[in-house]
Amino acid sequence: MELSTLEETTTLETTLGHLRRPLLPKVLQVQQGIVRAVHDFMFKKGLTQLMPLMLSPITDPLNHGVVDATIGYADRHWSLTKSMIFHKQLALLNPALQSLYIVSPNVRLEFSDRAGTGRHLFEFTQIDFEFKDKDRFYVMEFMEELVNAVFARLNAEIPEVLLELRGELLPQYEQWPVYRTEKLEAALGPDYERIKSEEATTPFWLLNHTREFYDKEDPAKPGTYLNYDLIWPDGFGEGLSGAEREHEYHQIRKRMAQVGTSQEIFKHYLEVAREEGLPRTAGAGFGVERMTRFICRLKDVDEVTVFSRKPYAASLF
Amino acid sequence: MELSTLEETTTLETTLGHLRRPLLPKVLQVQQGIVRAVHDFMFKKGLTQLMPLMLSPITDPLNHGVVDATIGYADRHWSLTKSMIFHKQLALLNPALQSLYIVSPNVRLEFSDRAGTGRHLFEFTQIDFEFKDKDRFYVMEFMEELVNAVFARLNAEIPEVLLELRGELLPQYEQWPVYRTEKLEAALGPDYERIKSEEATTPFWLLNHTREFYDKEDPAKPGTYLNYDLIWPDGFGEGLSGAEREHEYHQIRKRMAQVGTSQEIFKHYLEVAREEGLPRTAGAGFGVERMTRFICRLKDVDEVTVFSRKPYAASLF
Repeated sequence: MELSTLEETTTLETTLGHLRRPLLPKVLQVQQGIVRAVHDFMFKKGLTQLMPLMLSPITDPLNHGVVDATIGYADRHWSLTKSMIFHKQLALLNPALQSLYIVSPNVRLEFSDRAGTGRHLFEFTQIDFEFKDKDRFYVMEFMEELVNAVFARLNAEIPEVLLELRGELLPQYEQWPVYRTEKLEAALGPDYERIKSEEATTPFWLLNHTREFYDKEDPAKPGTYLNYDLIWPDGFGEGLSGAEREHEYHQIRKRMAQVGTSQEIFKHYLEVAREEGLPRTAGAGFGVERMTRFICRLKDVDEVTVFSRKPYAASLF
Repeated sequence: MELSTLEETTTLETTLGHLRRPLLPKVLQVQQGIVRAVHDFMFKKGLTQLMPLMLSPITDPLNHGVVDATIGYADRHWSLTKSMIFHKQLALLNPALQSLYIVSPNVRLEFSDRAGTGRHLFEFTQIDFEFKDKDRFYVMEFMEELVNAVFARLNAEIPEVLLELRGELLPQYEQWPVYRTEKLEAALGPDYERIKSEEATTPFWLLNHTREFYDKEDPAKPGTYLNYDLIWPDGFGEGLSGAEREHEYHQIRKRMAQVGTSQEIFKHYLEVAREEGLPRTAGAGFGVERMTRFICRLKDVDEVTVFSRKPYAASLF
């Protein structure tokens, strides 16, 4: 009893120490600058903003296991949003919507093995965007332009904060290098992503990941996929995942069977694909806290948070 | 079996009809304009943006019952966010933060009796803001200025959309009228809020609601409260709730006991109030979809959504 009380006092002190950090308000200024710059960039490019949803009968099955997060309401099960992927695709069924974005909390109840990666939070904010009738090349260029626009805006708006946090202003990048997972793995072994991120001095693209059913298989090279991750340099690792999407009924069912996704849970999604046809889309999503961490050169993404959301950390609030 | 299949097909058609509405993209443009204008207004006024959290050991107990929404993770119970009220107060313990705002999904699993109000969704987006060392007069003026700023920006940016949706551009308001609940109730009976909202042609303030423990009791007039609601005119009803906050330990405990809030669930919050002292704050939160509904003159707030979130409506996605 006494021990438990002592432990809780320490947790409270840790919690308050975390939210009282003198650097925190400056990190938040950077994050706020990112969000505002993104809203303006999206508007200029004609993307429509959707509000986030936190509950749905379907959500992203993800490529790795997490603790289940579902609740019951109105005689149904509702999953907490892991990403807005299916809502992006479905919303683009509206004939007048060509492209959209969503600033959305994502809840991913990571197991404790991800507590120490420096890159995982069990809830974070993702900026998810999707285009109808565009391909991977379009999305990759769009993201490169977005990063330069955000960086230029931060340089102009809060140069003194950037100088304090990272010692210099943010760069403007030329076209990012592009690598393929299978080639890097052959050259560098299974830890290729970390090694390449540590070597790199600019963001780069990493193509061809075998993962969720909704990333499109390359019809010209079955068993490879038309997806792309942004990898931040200097060891900061993955910062965006995106893909052209599977939209054809039979191909979706084939991919679901391959990766073991429940067709029962996705029966209405499959019905739309079969009866109505899903739109052909491509898009991506990036983590706001990870971009903030990269810009501020922080050791751990949890340094971006006011209330710690490190997997399995004791959080009182 | 056949019947059930038929019913589900109808639900799918309803779902797709809802998201394919020709007017929807225009309503979303208005909503996007609100969000962008608010971000810029907050930045200009020096408020720091915090990212939303969806899970916490504590959340707003609310003034009315809803279905419980909690999940288990890392040996704890986590409540889905009903509002960011306590996180706003606690974040302001950081000495360098004077004011903040959060664009946050709120999950309130309403019972079926709120399905037909035209004003309730079981998840929606709230813009929550809070100031350290400010009073109700400051917050009310701030909100009046915010509404005028948002309306002016929409008039400038998307006049043609406004003309199509509401037949005219948005007004600029002088200072809003202020009423008190107890006086309106004496004059108009228990349905005073609806009656007054239907009569009104400009937004007005409604003071003194008996509700959650965190709204400050008026020390000069015990049993009355230093809180304020924005009521939209033309029958659109409540659009913002705010208050000066209780921040003193003994007063918080007294109010918790009065309204029946669990002191066990809030033990760490109470410990902060007792040991550290909560900051003296005032703030408010307003619903983005309700402001959008008012501007677009829509019958039901659900017309603002891409995927219906009307309480107890059958939602497939």
